[in-house]
Amino acid sequence: MNFDKITIIGVGLLGSSFALALKRVGINAVITGVGRNEEKLAKAEELGIIDEHTTIAADGVVGADLVLLAAPVGQLENIAEDIRNDLKKGAIVTDVGSVKGDLVRKIEALMPEGVSFVGGHPIAGKERAGFEAATSDLFWGAKCIITPTPETDKDALEKVTELWKQLGAKVFHMTPDEHDEIYSAVSHLPHVVAYALVNSIAGLREDILDFGGRGLKDMTRIALSPTELWKDICSQNSDKILKSLNDFSSNISGIIKRFEKSDWKGLEEEFLKAKEARQRLESD
Amino acid sequence: MNFDKITIIGVGLLGSSFALALKRVGINAVITGVGRNEEKLAKAEELGIIDEHTTIAADGVVGADLVLLAAPVGQLENIAEDIRNDLKKGAIVTDVGSVKGDLVRKIEALMPEGVSFVGGHPIAGKERAGFEAATSDLFWGAKCIITPTPETDKDALEKVTELWKQLGAKVFHMTPDEHDEIYSAVSHLPHVVAYALVNSIAGLREDILDFGGRGLKDMTRIALSPTELWKDICSQNSDKILKSLNDFSSNISGIIKRFEKSDWKGLEEEFLKAKEARQRLESD
Repeated sequence: MNFDKITIIGVGLLGSSFALALKRVGINAVITGVGRNEEKLAKAEELGIIDEHTTIAADGVVGADLVLLAAPVGQLENIAEDIRNDLKKGAIVTDVGSVKGDLVRKIEALMPEGVSFVGGHPIAGKERAGFEAATSDLFWGAKCIITPTPETDKDALEKVTELWKQLGAKVFHMTPDEHDEIYSAVSHLPHVVAYALVNSIAGLREDILDFGGRGLKDMTRIALSPTELWKDICSQNSDKILKSLNDFSSNISGIIKRFEKSDWKGLEEEFLKAKEARQRLESD
Repeated sequence: MNFDKITIIGVGLLGSSFALALKRVGINAVITGVGRNEEKLAKAEELGIIDEHTTIAADGVVGADLVLLAAPVGQLENIAEDIRNDLKKGAIVTDVGSVKGDLVRKIEALMPEGVSFVGGHPIAGKERAGFEAATSDLFWGAKCIITPTPETDKDALEKVTELWKQLGAKVFHMTPDEHDEIYSAVSHLPHVVAYALVNSIAGLREDILDFGGRGLKDMTRIALSPTELWKDICSQNSDKILKSLNDFSSNISGIIKRFEKSDWKGLEEEFLKAKEARQRLESD
């Protein structure tokens, strides 16, 4: 692969970890960081995460071989509009957004002749945001979903795939809609449930969360995630998340019925089914 | 405190960790382990967790100054009946059950003249069960809820409180019903929700959990908990858990309405409220 200049738009947790990971595996491109906050960008440059920076996205992408859109998903479409006229012929644009579907189709449509867009989603979030939380091994061993469409350039797809593999990720290809269906269930639903669980518990009395143990902590940790980001994910994948929420709500209703009927045997069977399914996820 | 003989009924995670913690802080009582599985008991004795063992609870408690009921909550009432006639005058009986309320009142009523029962619940579970998972520091820094009733002997209450403090626990006193109300929300509800969440997700397609990231893992880890234990907890605290489940279900319904109305601003406000509440739980 031949990337002389890589531009990362959004120098937060994912963008900065991507930059650090590139350096770690020896990809010697000049890394340009683009963000809204000059002070933070200067700090990230000072720390050696990025090599140069600008607050103007269109300036930052000039001459870039690869552009990574790593801003919150709610901003990606606007950013694509801002940069489209300044992308060089042959440039590849990719992203790390948690929602694909419509977003991939919109960005794809915005790309000028000769520029390829390849949607991506590394499964490597944290509750803590910002370049301060970035690490060069964030993607090492993580899954990365790449979402080609019939329009996706085969060569660009292969380059993006190879790059993520080089950074240590396990790459899966699927359609944008399949991605959104799977992640509405395994990621978006759990986040929404975590927020709801905290509110439902905290509503009882002010100090109640203080009595929680490790189980509650683990289970509600993702309720510390950035709320604006999750609001955007919800609005952009709303149909599929709504379906997941309705499935989940039916499941809870079924459990409530078992409690009302004192059906403890049936309840234990459900618990056992869940336990067996959960064991599929490797333990840690 | 003067405990020459301490009997632990149920040599699983909590019972064994209690035994190890006693030794660690230098309480030199003879520790008798009682369980149903002779082979496991012999192994625990061989490992030095307990000093002697028996499979007959009534035999095990003879001469004991302190008896810890550390079997699953569904068995505690029967065990109390089995041992009541063999407890010595002046003995203190306590437990580690996740449910108090009725159970405390029932066990209290079973205790003979001169024997004191003090209900207890250390907040220190793990998904992994058994003496193999036990550690001498399981209770260090953990909360331990002690649930005195108007019948509780003051001297026994103080002794049990001091013992848990000696093992490093932060002790809180509250009524059995207050305990059950709080823990129906901060512990029992989250467990039920974790099982329901896994089933709801796993219902979509067989391999779907494989795509989950760290957030899903953290959130569903407690679905690995022993199902029989949690079935018992649910049946023994059913009214309060049912109320918690209904509160939670209303909360989910409210979120579904926001999705249906595309009320993203309102959704983000709920997320923010949850995030702020969750920040009360110290991070780790």
